[in-house]
Amino acid sequence: MRAEVIAVGSELLLGQITNTNAKFISGRLADVGIDVYYHTVVGDNPERLAQTIQLAQQRADILIFSGGLGPTKDDLTKQTIAKELGRELVSDPEAMETIQQYFKHVGKVMTENNKQQALVLEGATVLPNRHGMAPGIAIGKEDKQYILLPGPPSELEPMFENEAIPYLLSVYGRQDIIVSKVLKLQGIGESELEVRIQSILENQTNPTIAPLASPGMVKLRITAKAKSEEEAEKLILPVEQQIRAIVGDFIYGVDDDTLSSKATELLLQNDWSISAAESLTSGMFMAELGSESGIGNALKGGVVVYNAQAKVEQLNISPSLLDFHGIVSAECAEALAENVQRKFDTTFGVGLTGAAGPEPHDGQPPGTVWIGIAAEGLETVSYKLQLSGTRNSNRKRSVQFALHYLIQKMKEKKEVKY
Amino acid sequence: MRAEVIAVGSELLLGQITNTNAKFISGRLADVGIDVYYHTVVGDNPERLAQTIQLAQQRADILIFSGGLGPTKDDLTKQTIAKELGRELVSDPEAMETIQQYFKHVGKVMTENNKQQALVLEGATVLPNRHGMAPGIAIGKEDKQYILLPGPPSELEPMFENEAIPYLLSVYGRQDIIVSKVLKLQGIGESELEVRIQSILENQTNPTIAPLASPGMVKLRITAKAKSEEEAEKLILPVEQQIRAIVGDFIYGVDDDTLSSKATELLLQNDWSISAAESLTSGMFMAELGSESGIGNALKGGVVVYNAQAKVEQLNISPSLLDFHGIVSAECAEALAENVQRKFDTTFGVGLTGAAGPEPHDGQPPGTVWIGIAAEGLETVSYKLQLSGTRNSNRKRSVQFALHYLIQKMKEKKEVKY
Repeated sequence: MRAEVIAVGSELLLGQITNTNAKFISGRLADVGIDVYYHTVVGDNPERLAQTIQLAQQRADILIFSGGLGPTKDDLTKQTIAKELGRELVSDPEAMETIQQYFKHVGKVMTENNKQQALVLEGATVLPNRHGMAPGIAIGKEDKQYILLPGPPSELEPMFENEAIPYLLSVYGRQDIIVSKVLKLQGIGESELEVRIQSILENQTNPTIAPLASPGMVKLRITAKAKSEEEAEKLILPVEQQIRAIVGDFIYGVDDDTLSSKATELLLQNDWSISAAESLTSGMFMAELGSESGIGNALKGGVVVYNAQAKVEQLNISPSLLDFHGIVSAECAEALAENVQRKFDTTFGVGLTGAAGPEPHDGQPPGTVWIGIAAEGLETVSYKLQLSGTRNSNRKRSVQFALHYLIQKMKEKKEVKY
Repeated sequence: MRAEVIAVGSELLLGQITNTNAKFISGRLADVGIDVYYHTVVGDNPERLAQTIQLAQQRADILIFSGGLGPTKDDLTKQTIAKELGRELVSDPEAMETIQQYFKHVGKVMTENNKQQALVLEGATVLPNRHGMAPGIAIGKEDKQYILLPGPPSELEPMFENEAIPYLLSVYGRQDIIVSKVLKLQGIGESELEVRIQSILENQTNPTIAPLASPGMVKLRITAKAKSEEEAEKLILPVEQQIRAIVGDFIYGVDDDTLSSKATELLLQNDWSISAAESLTSGMFMAELGSESGIGNALKGGVVVYNAQAKVEQLNISPSLLDFHGIVSAECAEALAENVQRKFDTTFGVGLTGAAGPEPHDGQPPGTVWIGIAAEGLETVSYKLQLSGTRNSNRKRSVQFALHYLIQKMKEKKEVKY
């Protein structure tokens, strides 16, 4: 099966946005064994879009379109494809219902042009949009399949994953499927990891193992090809066990796990509570934990103490400590952690202080960060980071390291394995 | 002049990397007034690459290729284009020198296949690579221009900017240039906006106006084509004024402005200070402000009070208020704003409370949010949001709305225009 991924939108041709949809769609098609031969980007122009469709019909079996399903005048994808396929556009009652519900919910008046979003090709399979208004469309004609998806990645990605892929698999019958499991590591570098598992990496064919580096994190993707999910998982398991035997201590989770989901899981499992005192991250650490649903039972709260005055007045950090050791110091980070833990009466207290950049702060070069972790019944610890990124990447990485050290402290508090 | 941007590389079709080169090249071409009609991505396959070249020759004047200039077996771009144009490949002495220097520099032995990187099309203009080994190539035949660029963005971007653009301008003589101005709006939807400025949107040719929606925000791009930047701006101004006359209240900034950069600018200009009390956003509002460098002079800090107990203990919110009006209420949001403003002694205090989702909270459906704004010498106000996104998009949008209402309050406090 050969697929072509066609993105529609002049903003792509003007270089205003990147075509991340083509990457996402292609990656998932590869996972289910469908080959992509071409990506095409065309503007909001009906003639050129029609030519693009005719060309793709000659060189592909599956045409996947993204963008141009919205309510505005330059959203022409549906109309143009309907014309090419000689199909009528009809209003889909469910889609219309979704759109009306949306406007009712947000308490706005629905304008006429929004009705256009409920139009679908006659006889098509409607792909519901759970994160927006415009539904997706799937339709087969002769030996070709056409999939129409909305442009915004937040709508396209879940729709493609949950609606379009199952549709395609049902049309073609399940191909040899590919199952991937991603091991997520923190506290070890990519090259060190590769050296340590060299023996496993060598002559792996099925499953394959690929180290993936992303800012501040290292991942290992194990990918197996088999007739069924069960078979694929049978191939993955022994390799995963070999890897865990060597670098298990650095593996904090798999697949969609994040440091904050892992920390939240541990907090809730053990009925622990947490608070934080943040300086350079100004709330980012608590915001990250707050993204986990259910965290309300563990995260009591915390304080953002951005300047020295706030640290003294809000958390009783002694001015002499700040004078003597400095704001960016182990002593300050530990005092922040202990005082916020006491103030909010929580199991754990986390303190973050540092120079985010671009300017030095309190005599410390940008990227110098101290993280303090206080835990009921355990000694307070602190860690120094020397980061080299921008102001915001330094703040983001500080949050990830704080979660990493917090999880280590949790393991100490209760023989918790990552 | 019509250009087509052609990326060569199977890793793009496998969804392993994103085609950021097409975005960069297209943006720079727009800047110099060259229209891009298509992006194409094709794999490392000589037949399909040849077909792609033949097709692009029919629909474009300028063919810009990225990738496939390296030393490995699947780097075929040069060879395939040479064949299509009937040109020989010859070794370029300067390029060869660069490659030999490189290997001397890193103290490695140069392998045979690296000599391939010095091959260029006979009679072509060589575009030196100052950040890698493979040179770029520019060559004209009949009425077409062909530009070959290396794949890595770190090599492609400076080469395109400093070598390819000047080459194209010298070939065609400076084209009309294109100037865009983006108006950023908050508090109005894309479709409502389009309806309200319909009369302006209609029959606009130069400048053109394009509404762009991004999560929680609406933008209007005004694009003018002219001989000079000054002329283009002269074309943009009157249209911008017409738009501001209708929806000016919703326009908070232009181009790279963000709500937080705008709020920070106003805080610093007026020597104002700010603090926040956050519940559902758990620090996200302060984290967003904290991303602005220099904010340290205005953001004293704040508290995250995630559960009722913390609201009572840390901010003296009266338990009876919470019982009577609820945690997700105007009264709670206003009390959070006023109490944190008093506690941190700041000009402004912002309070955020709500049900982020996915579960209802304190009897309120997910997406119900109250934002309170307290300001020295002004009456405290609060606003209700009814959002329909995921837990995290609801939290992010709450922060954007809080910044929006904060800026409105700032305008009230001192006749500040957005």
